[in-house]
Amino acid sequence: MSIPDKVVNRLALYHFILEDLKDDEQYISSTKIAQLLNIDNSQVRKDIKYLDNSGKCRVGYDARRLKKAIEDCLGFQQKKDAFIIGAGNLGSALAKYDSFQDYGLNILAMFDNDPKKIGTTINGKEVFNLTKVGNLVRRLNVEIAILTIPREYAKGVALYLAGAGIKYIWNFTPCVLDVPSDVKVWNENLIGSFLQFTNNDEV
Amino acid sequence: MSIPDKVVNRLALYHFILEDLKDDEQYISSTKIAQLLNIDNSQVRKDIKYLDNSGKCRVGYDARRLKKAIEDCLGFQQKKDAFIIGAGNLGSALAKYDSFQDYGLNILAMFDNDPKKIGTTINGKEVFNLTKVGNLVRRLNVEIAILTIPREYAKGVALYLAGAGIKYIWNFTPCVLDVPSDVKVWNENLIGSFLQFTNNDEV
Repeated sequence: MSIPDKVVNRLALYHFILEDLKDDEQYISSTKIAQLLNIDNSQVRKDIKYLDNSGKCRVGYDARRLKKAIEDCLGFQQKKDAFIIGAGNLGSALAKYDSFQDYGLNILAMFDNDPKKIGTTINGKEVFNLTKVGNLVRRLNVEIAILTIPREYAKGVALYLAGAGIKYIWNFTPCVLDVPSDVKVWNENLIGSFLQFTNNDEV
Repeated sequence: MSIPDKVVNRLALYHFILEDLKDDEQYISSTKIAQLLNIDNSQVRKDIKYLDNSGKCRVGYDARRLKKAIEDCLGFQQKKDAFIIGAGNLGSALAKYDSFQDYGLNILAMFDNDPKKIGTTINGKEVFNLTKVGNLVRRLNVEIAILTIPREYAKGVALYLAGAGIKYIWNFTPCVLDVPSDVKVWNENLIGSFLQFTNNDEV
């Protein structure tokens, strides 16, 4: 069953909440989740119906079962290997983001064109010369690239990645990429996100 | 008129496309925009109807007018001042993200509790001791905090920011914050985003 994007997003947030529960909190109610996220109670219950989760009783959901049901549904156990393209601050931050591992994202290596960065290691991930990406895509069978390079290089490098065999680009640059149709792009549109935030609330 | 979140997000992407047009490209069609984003043509036309934009003719939209209409609609000129909380890699990356300025986000200063970072400057933004945040919130009248600290400190620091007078938290931590109801939180849920990306396409 395909789950709408917004629901996937909220299920991840529910998982954060469950992660933070103390050991003695065995149950959690939809009301509690809804209140923490400032959303509607019925929304939470509807989202949870997408899961294969029968751990509901009068006092709420069984927290451990609900957590496991989210993990199974969203495939946290199915590791997805990825490369980070760009070893600047943002790339380094993502390489150090150990939570990714828990959610199925396995970052194998990083790439840059700066000789000072090539050969260094960030959180156990080696930085390779960008020219090596095709070779390593084939050898390691990696399909996902996380693009964190400066805007002015984004389009060119995206085409280069497509040519190297990358099939999915998670794009953190403020730039719309023009790649062949067999490459899927997911725009992590930070500026759009900020604008949503501030336009809704008249900051 | 309130604009749905998804539309705001797409309008920002249209703006990226318009930014990248060459000087001699005076017009752009909805088909071209739709094709670059792999969405439906009618969607683009519908989104643009939210704008106060009369620059449409047979060959497409007047690119300069459309760009200006998006800027006016989403308030790029209304500067919103913000602080970055956490001067690690992610905080530094956001501080160096000069594009924010063009879209109305004005980062005034950063805060950390690491003595080695306090007093340094990142892209012209000084890093202050976190204990100073209340004072500077009042003096500079800042309402927005961008939270980029490690997960384990997120809840505590969010409460501290609420107490210091912050009204909007853009939360980059994988943690659901529990703050008083007069503080609005926007979760930049990177893990949810990755899961949406990979669940839709069976990577």
